[in-house]
Amino acid sequence: MSNNDIINLFLNPKSVAVIGASKNPLKGGNWIVNNLTLNNFKGEIYPINPNTEGKMYGLEIKKSVLDIENEVDLAIFYSPNKVVPEILKECIQKGIKGAIIQTAGFQEVGTDKGLELRDQILKITDNFKKIRIVGPNCMGITRFDNDSTSEEKGGFFSGFGVFNNYKRGNIAIISQSGMLNGGYLMYIMEKYPDIGFRYSCTIGNKPDLSEIEFLEYFLEDSTVNVIAIYLESFKDPRKFIELCRKAKTIPKKTLILVKGGLTSQGKKATLSHTGSLAENSQLTEAIIKQSGVIRAHSFHELFQFARTFSMMYNTGKQLPQKGGGVAIIVGSGGAGTILADLLMQHGLNLPLFRDKAYKTLEEIFPSWMPPNRFSLIDIWPAMEKAQKNNINRSVLLKLVYDAILGEPEIEGLFNMLFCSKRFRQQYNVDEMIKNTNQISKPIFFWLIGEAKEVAYISQLLANNNIPSFTNLEEMVKNYWILVQESKNQNQN
Amino acid sequence: MSNNDIINLFLNPKSVAVIGASKNPLKGGNWIVNNLTLNNFKGEIYPINPNTEGKMYGLEIKKSVLDIENEVDLAIFYSPNKVVPEILKECIQKGIKGAIIQTAGFQEVGTDKGLELRDQILKITDNFKKIRIVGPNCMGITRFDNDSTSEEKGGFFSGFGVFNNYKRGNIAIISQSGMLNGGYLMYIMEKYPDIGFRYSCTIGNKPDLSEIEFLEYFLEDSTVNVIAIYLESFKDPRKFIELCRKAKTIPKKTLILVKGGLTSQGKKATLSHTGSLAENSQLTEAIIKQSGVIRAHSFHELFQFARTFSMMYNTGKQLPQKGGGVAIIVGSGGAGTILADLLMQHGLNLPLFRDKAYKTLEEIFPSWMPPNRFSLIDIWPAMEKAQKNNINRSVLLKLVYDAILGEPEIEGLFNMLFCSKRFRQQYNVDEMIKNTNQISKPIFFWLIGEAKEVAYISQLLANNNIPSFTNLEEMVKNYWILVQESKNQNQN
Repeated sequence: MSNNDIINLFLNPKSVAVIGASKNPLKGGNWIVNNLTLNNFKGEIYPINPNTEGKMYGLEIKKSVLDIENEVDLAIFYSPNKVVPEILKECIQKGIKGAIIQTAGFQEVGTDKGLELRDQILKITDNFKKIRIVGPNCMGITRFDNDSTSEEKGGFFSGFGVFNNYKRGNIAIISQSGMLNGGYLMYIMEKYPDIGFRYSCTIGNKPDLSEIEFLEYFLEDSTVNVIAIYLESFKDPRKFIELCRKAKTIPKKTLILVKGGLTSQGKKATLSHTGSLAENSQLTEAIIKQSGVIRAHSFHELFQFARTFSMMYNTGKQLPQKGGGVAIIVGSGGAGTILADLLMQHGLNLPLFRDKAYKTLEEIFPSWMPPNRFSLIDIWPAMEKAQKNNINRSVLLKLVYDAILGEPEIEGLFNMLFCSKRFRQQYNVDEMIKNTNQISKPIFFWLIGEAKEVAYISQLLANNNIPSFTNLEEMVKNYWILVQESKNQNQN
Repeated sequence: MSNNDIINLFLNPKSVAVIGASKNPLKGGNWIVNNLTLNNFKGEIYPINPNTEGKMYGLEIKKSVLDIENEVDLAIFYSPNKVVPEILKECIQKGIKGAIIQTAGFQEVGTDKGLELRDQILKITDNFKKIRIVGPNCMGITRFDNDSTSEEKGGFFSGFGVFNNYKRGNIAIISQSGMLNGGYLMYIMEKYPDIGFRYSCTIGNKPDLSEIEFLEYFLEDSTVNVIAIYLESFKDPRKFIELCRKAKTIPKKTLILVKGGLTSQGKKATLSHTGSLAENSQLTEAIIKQSGVIRAHSFHELFQFARTFSMMYNTGKQLPQKGGGVAIIVGSGGAGTILADLLMQHGLNLPLFRDKAYKTLEEIFPSWMPPNRFSLIDIWPAMEKAQKNNINRSVLLKLVYDAILGEPEIEGLFNMLFCSKRFRQQYNVDEMIKNTNQISKPIFFWLIGEAKEVAYISQLLANNNIPSFTNLEEMVKNYWILVQESKNQNQN
């Protein structure tokens, strides 16, 4: 079986056995079966527990995988660590080709018992020749086929965190932290109801299958545009770099990485978490640099960056090509100042307007307050003038968009919007979204004002794949990664 | 009149004239009177407009300040720039001692007309000897006496952004960006319903009164613990440094600064915003370093930092004294790893446990998964064991708190909490809050899980002045500033 075939089996099994299935609704072995059935797993599910009888979620519980008559593709382990080796033997005997071992308590514990169990697995599987393994010490794999709101909701949900709200999208996760197929992923999906995922794969201690095989698969999977990765160590640095570079030659494929274990105490943490010996920091930096992967420094950044790229790919926006010229439209000079500083600190800049664009702006602005010659537009006086002349703000904005985004040096736009229910009719969000969608350059919004109205406008924008932020620094970083990615792609 | 007396007049006027008051509900001159009356300004309000007659908000509109019979403390200008000099003459004639000029269109415009108006003001006021000025080009001053939910709501609300939701607290703002007494402040107060302010003072182009006089006043005002400052230039760097250093000798007094105009394009922005010639970056860095002020890099950071200090002072928490030893409690090894890295990158560390503390932890953890010897606690296995023994999570947490926070090197704690309505009964938030309040060391929470439950728990914590975050980087930065502030205070 090729690597892509085996990953395909882990992502698209036709039948699964859940080892350690439990009727007790406070146990992980219960939640896994719940998650699978609730989310309409289309294949066969066999709950296995030698100490239980009867049915759970309408499925008959069996004592052993050997009691199953039909073929089984995958075994999902949520049993105590000490019984894993014996049951793994039975899985091999049954001809099961893959196991997702969520159970913890192997080399990461650092005790003799943990190491002994690891060695037993290596022996029983003949170094993973007899059965392929994802984990141990992971939180399963999820494949999102359809949104939770659709009738055909679900896919393959094998983690013990039970998912209720999700959206299918173009992001795949590869993670050494189980949380990214559990509590944190749930939080992100509720925080950004627009963000959509295709897969989430947790790989745990990864003695067998690792980031490498999943990455290889996702490079060829056209449903995946963005790959969000959390690693505590690199399984094969040379191959990782090779795959990241290959990604740059594939249209609409962006990799984002968070690396854990950068410091001495971070390394101690990875050792006790996934038994990972994190590389020394120089090597880590070299790997990241050579790979050209987009780097995130926390889970928060990882998903915010993933969301931004996902939106850009969904709408076919053109990533900035020429080196970071942008324009700013603000209603606050203070915000404009901070934003100008942040942009320059990130290597971006505010180009000067050509005469034609500047003339248009001069006409829009009152004579007592002419516009800047560089691409920082404090729109307030122009809005006052427009109001006097009964011109709607979205019409005014369209004039400004057309004037400044025609400038070739300006490859993107930051637009501040004051959100107040009282002013809603004045800025006509639908018009603004229409205008934004018509332009191939990225337009990001910075929202302030009434919190409820900010949430409302932010959601409207997100539904149309338009990124918005309430934090200037985050907005600039999320634009800056587009410039980085475009630069990396051009170097290939 | 001493500087403190004049600032006192601007913060606590007994009577105000609003120049440019308008009956049109779409104009700033209307909103100011609305804001004052809605928020129960206790003194006299005189709307002034030579082109209008009748009443607004129950107040008779007069043609000129000279038509007012009684004494007037302050004039608030929201008139076209070109009429400011003439009306200022009348104000002087009337004996008005201070003017808040919100009108823009002076030196910041960069036109001859703007500079001419500035010069006229200098001449008419005899260099601010005849009347003292806040602004021009600002958004007024607010004094918060009582929460918006109380019957006695309000104070002195002179900006044109009409405030509906606010809380009185121990934070004062000094800002060259009007937004911080307008849309952005509204956003912050709705985002953090627990955050409370005492004053917000926007100073605009500050040819007369500046950050210096307000800062001097707030150092002596015991209702103010935290001073959040946004500057585009320093009016008097030497004096600024002196006042910041003086603040370090006053208990419960912390200054936080965002400086705009750090880069060449940021400087161009300050010039067109408040006519400020921002210092060159070396000088700026030197001033900030010598002042020992806590530095924020964006408005978002400014208010998050202010909120954290506000909470610490409200609860009398002890700022870390010994150099940054902390403990982590997580339910996710990945989060623990990232957090350990972030801590070390900020100069913090995870001390080793003494035998006594470690013994307690060993008893709490299952034998198959012993705890770390350093202060990163992955609580999951201990929670499973506690569940088996029917021990509530909040009881377990209390045992851990008592064991590790007794260690002298551990001066603070980061606690991860998975928020799920289903698990609410298991962690007993009220108990947890009680435990947290009993400990004098700062305890910060990192919340993940269901978004609604995160918001619910976050609010419960905030109501008790316990900071919580959903972003690991932000949590570490907000703790790191406590270490910085404590270090600065000790050096004095």
